[in-house]
Amino acid sequence: MCELLGMSANVPTDICFSFAGLVRRGGGTGPHGDGWGIAFYDGKACRTFHDPQASADSEIARFVRAYPIKSRIAISHIRRANRGRVSLENTHPFTRELWGRSWTFAHNGQLKGVKQRPLAHYRPIGTTDSEHAFCWMLDQLRTIWREAPPQAALDRAIRDLSRELATLGVFNLLLSDSRSLYCHCSTRLALLTRRAPFGQATLIDDDIKVDFATETTPNDVVTVVATRPLTSDEQWTELGHGAFLALRGGEVVG
Amino acid sequence: MCELLGMSANVPTDICFSFAGLVRRGGGTGPHGDGWGIAFYDGKACRTFHDPQASADSEIARFVRAYPIKSRIAISHIRRANRGRVSLENTHPFTRELWGRSWTFAHNGQLKGVKQRPLAHYRPIGTTDSEHAFCWMLDQLRTIWREAPPQAALDRAIRDLSRELATLGVFNLLLSDSRSLYCHCSTRLALLTRRAPFGQATLIDDDIKVDFATETTPNDVVTVVATRPLTSDEQWTELGHGAFLALRGGEVVG
Repeated sequence: MCELLGMSANVPTDICFSFAGLVRRGGGTGPHGDGWGIAFYDGKACRTFHDPQASADSEIARFVRAYPIKSRIAISHIRRANRGRVSLENTHPFTRELWGRSWTFAHNGQLKGVKQRPLAHYRPIGTTDSEHAFCWMLDQLRTIWREAPPQAALDRAIRDLSRELATLGVFNLLLSDSRSLYCHCSTRLALLTRRAPFGQATLIDDDIKVDFATETTPNDVVTVVATRPLTSDEQWTELGHGAFLALRGGEVVG
Repeated sequence: MCELLGMSANVPTDICFSFAGLVRRGGGTGPHGDGWGIAFYDGKACRTFHDPQASADSEIARFVRAYPIKSRIAISHIRRANRGRVSLENTHPFTRELWGRSWTFAHNGQLKGVKQRPLAHYRPIGTTDSEHAFCWMLDQLRTIWREAPPQAALDRAIRDLSRELATLGVFNLLLSDSRSLYCHCSTRLALLTRRAPFGQATLIDDDIKVDFATETTPNDVVTVVATRPLTSDEQWTELGHGAFLALRGGEVVG
């Protein structure tokens, strides 16, 4: 199983602390040594870093960990390959454009038979089930709407498509269109919202503490979603099977 | 005018030396302080780094310059904004997927009225003429061919589309589909092929020399394309107005 990390915030926020814990799981404290990637949204566009090497040994991961790129939405994935060889084209998150928005997708799990689903507009570049599922989701959205629909309709459609894919196996998902962060939990996903009064947090996977009170303003709201809790002294909520969430500005809104 | 840099090679090659010269032009020796980006192909996929900050002051540029990512095809662009505000979504190179291939596009020049051309499949995320032109080119290719055509037909189509866009203004182009590097010169583009016997080269924009004889094997062939020559002691060829080239494996093949 791969490890997912997502963030939604109401102000540009760096993800260095959480990412520091995550990357240790990629060949350090965890077995997920088959590459990693991260996407940071900045307005409508998205900056991505990918490396097919284990994140614990990756020069690019060391750079991303040290360099505070601030973002309202970020999605990261470290991979333990079960389908598709270890290569850059199979490294999440995947990105595509739809309705002039930059979409980013990271998944853990396996989806039996998803590659039999025909694709019209989007094609995978690599060979993973995950990228095929992403292309299929965007194909469906594009077939329903030539232009971006109202927010509530889009939220519902992504929820329904996620649930349909989840019937094929395990579908733990992080997805963004630059406005919302969508999460679907098949088996494992935990969530934590940080807001005032901010306290201290300690990483489980590395010897790092942070005092968020010194790093934030009282109005900041930041939600972090991860396969497994990243800190030992905060109250994470484990999502249930089939849970679907839409987050905007750090808040769970759907 | 922005600065372009492209590379085509028959073995994975790092572009650190050329990139070191290019980034100096982004707010250092040149006025192109409105962001920069670079794409490195690794097999079918592509790794990109983008920064809306001046490349001469960019932490990410310093990292890319120092970290030898090896690639057979690379495309870089440093921007002096003339259309579209300075922001990540307006920072070249732009990427899209067509026929399961990752396409990358960087342009300098202006294209009058290109935004009036209707788009069907691809939409710009930012507001530049350049991204609209890229979406239009891919739209045309996709309309002609639902699947990837034979190489010679694709080369001709990209040449014809480039020439059509060039009638709207200035179209200095670097484009790749992960297999070929395509170049179109409206006003300024220079080319240099390095092959055995390799010699020494000295950057124009920075106090750096490299002896390629110690960095290469006798069979390596590397072609570098740039807006202006990057080295003072090698024989660059200035391309003529309307020149179109296809490069594969470091060689000009069309």
